[in-house]
Amino acid sequence: MATSLAPLRVGICGLGTVAQGVLRLLSENASSIALRAGRPVEVVRVASRRARPGVDLGAASFGTDLRALATDPDIDVLVELIGGEELALELLETALKAGKPVVTANKAVLALHGDALMALANVHRTTLGFEAAVAGGIPVIVALTRGLAGNRVRWLAGIINGTSNYILSAMTSAGRRFADALAEAQALGYAEADPTFDVEGIDAAHKLTILSALAFGTRFRFADVYTEGISAITPEDIEFARQLGYRIKHLGIARDTGHGIEARVHPALVPAGHMLASVDGVMNAVLIHSNAAGDTLYVGAGAGALPTASAVVADLIDVARDTAGPPAPDPDVDQRMLGIEDIVSAYYLRIPALDRPGVFARVATVLSEYEISIEAAVQRAEAVHRDDGGPWVPIIIVTQDVPERVMNEALAAVQALPDVVGQIMRIRVADLGHD
Amino acid sequence: MATSLAPLRVGICGLGTVAQGVLRLLSENASSIALRAGRPVEVVRVASRRARPGVDLGAASFGTDLRALATDPDIDVLVELIGGEELALELLETALKAGKPVVTANKAVLALHGDALMALANVHRTTLGFEAAVAGGIPVIVALTRGLAGNRVRWLAGIINGTSNYILSAMTSAGRRFADALAEAQALGYAEADPTFDVEGIDAAHKLTILSALAFGTRFRFADVYTEGISAITPEDIEFARQLGYRIKHLGIARDTGHGIEARVHPALVPAGHMLASVDGVMNAVLIHSNAAGDTLYVGAGAGALPTASAVVADLIDVARDTAGPPAPDPDVDQRMLGIEDIVSAYYLRIPALDRPGVFARVATVLSEYEISIEAAVQRAEAVHRDDGGPWVPIIIVTQDVPERVMNEALAAVQALPDVVGQIMRIRVADLGHD
Repeated sequence: MATSLAPLRVGICGLGTVAQGVLRLLSENASSIALRAGRPVEVVRVASRRARPGVDLGAASFGTDLRALATDPDIDVLVELIGGEELALELLETALKAGKPVVTANKAVLALHGDALMALANVHRTTLGFEAAVAGGIPVIVALTRGLAGNRVRWLAGIINGTSNYILSAMTSAGRRFADALAEAQALGYAEADPTFDVEGIDAAHKLTILSALAFGTRFRFADVYTEGISAITPEDIEFARQLGYRIKHLGIARDTGHGIEARVHPALVPAGHMLASVDGVMNAVLIHSNAAGDTLYVGAGAGALPTASAVVADLIDVARDTAGPPAPDPDVDQRMLGIEDIVSAYYLRIPALDRPGVFARVATVLSEYEISIEAAVQRAEAVHRDDGGPWVPIIIVTQDVPERVMNEALAAVQALPDVVGQIMRIRVADLGHD
Repeated sequence: MATSLAPLRVGICGLGTVAQGVLRLLSENASSIALRAGRPVEVVRVASRRARPGVDLGAASFGTDLRALATDPDIDVLVELIGGEELALELLETALKAGKPVVTANKAVLALHGDALMALANVHRTTLGFEAAVAGGIPVIVALTRGLAGNRVRWLAGIINGTSNYILSAMTSAGRRFADALAEAQALGYAEADPTFDVEGIDAAHKLTILSALAFGTRFRFADVYTEGISAITPEDIEFARQLGYRIKHLGIARDTGHGIEARVHPALVPAGHMLASVDGVMNAVLIHSNAAGDTLYVGAGAGALPTASAVVADLIDVARDTAGPPAPDPDVDQRMLGIEDIVSAYYLRIPALDRPGVFARVATVLSEYEISIEAAVQRAEAVHRDDGGPWVPIIIVTQDVPERVMNEALAAVQALPDVVGQIMRIRVADLGHD
């Protein structure tokens, strides 16, 4: 069969868990991969700053010179799995300039330098594969760039950070506070010692930058992605949301509004009956709403050595089949990015107020002055456990749609009421309706 | 940009709703499609046995000679959307023999003649695209053949017939009987006047044949797919299953057991908390368990003009980018297909028995003689509404795993008990655990 063709010679920079997963997959699944790729896919070189004597490299040779590997004439494709930004970028640029296809799982480098890298790949008539950079083992890049290629994407919404989803799931199922759920996630290896990248939404914003660029054909605009993490969410918010028929999820949302692109990462209320609401633990999910296929949902493991390696190997098989990578965005059709103040959303509000007659009416009056309608409110909010003390109760309101700019002004006015005795919590409601 | 290249000239056989969807999509999304395809994709010819004066064909010319279109030198690719078997097969073969790539949504032709068509495409160095043949707008073919190409698929389970899923959903949510739910589906246009293909599982078996061939690299073996429909399911079964923590779904299941391939379509109990259980109405879903990515789930519209057109256009864009289609299965690695008697499953049993002392013990004793263990049973089954009269009650049992061959023998023995007064109902429990 076709496997008598010359093998694709792979060089891997990095020898962490994902690189080891790639080595293992290419070895264990060699025959089915060769069948699908039309020829064998073999790792011939591995470069890493430090050796790992216990790792089985198969027939590959080992070296410590990462830069030399990027231009090594004996490899057909470079896989960059060292992480970090500067050196990874240099390696990718060097290989692309040498006309070599590259495959990377590096979401940060793509989010920050994706335009330059795609342009370089185009100029040197080669390809840049990054299925592994978003949502691990879920083939969402190929879904966007091939499966849905005939569609115009209207919006997408994803649970794209497993750490945050694990923490919110634990807070929801066990009533834990954020700090306790984080400590548990750290003990289980689901969160880093410094969890900032995950829980403050930066990792999700990197991934959303990539999804948004592919979905709308725009440039990679990480700096324009509004980013808000989950550290301010309390178990009380989760409980009030539950009473109102919602779950709280950390979403990345990108939308073509017709007058610009929204891209934002923040906690959001999701209707409890929606499939996104039941994606729990470290699972990832991306919901894509497009003008022909309608809603399509992709769910799976968003991280982990083998799921990520699965995506890297998919890109290598594409290279072996001599397939063009995702097209570079056309700079001529770049679209305006909207700021967070430009979005329109419904909002969940938790307003700490003195427990005295007429307080709800005074809050509602201020909101009505800004033409903000109330969709729902939690009655008897004082029945919910609070450990913050004080002779006051939270007023819980879900509004109808309103521009964030207007909501900000209204909240400043509500905050100034003498009845309001603490910082107002505001969580956006995910709009998962059509168009 | 790249759009200055020559357009891909498309000829479409058929002018039904899907063909109209393809025309509309290629027109409405022309610029984004040209960007992703690297060149414009234009319909230049449409052939249909009868004209439809109201349909906007754009710049395409119309004819009634389908066979002439298959070899027309002015088209680069043939899209077959006439349905049916013999003429569709002839058109596909003719175009492939002329070296033209073809795109089809015809699951029946693929399930029955997929091997011959793929071989023909290989010999003539062209491609056969059929993303639209399975699960409509969900890009599950590209997920299997590209996104998960580095994996070995262990098993997959899909809700791949919207009509059956709509009927079961209506029976579940509204307690309707099969005949009433079918009539409602027919009134809403979700079921054909002759619903046999859908409700008896033939359509699902066509799709499972395709998924199984791609997942395991085997031939297209429709004749070996065990097929059982939903017409025997009663609202009582749905209610008993609910009490035991399950939903009843119509699944297509294919599994590489290590000693052969199982492929079967039948109603199945799915744990109520599993995401497949909440895929309701006409939605489709495919869950793929593979050795690196783990569980990945794909959900969306499985039918409809625009979702199906979305998949056809995805294939056309692949052709425009000069991408190789899915690889043909290697006949040398074809695997043994297992019969339904070879599967191992847990079973839901509804046993109509006389309401007298010791009857449950006598049934359990027979099962134990066949080494079949009872996982769960519904107590107080007589409390559930029955409209079949008679002085007897259903005994409801869920067993542990047992080979179907053994279960068949055990059921014959149980059926022969003097206590058992009616036909035993047996529904398999879906094993959605790992490996």
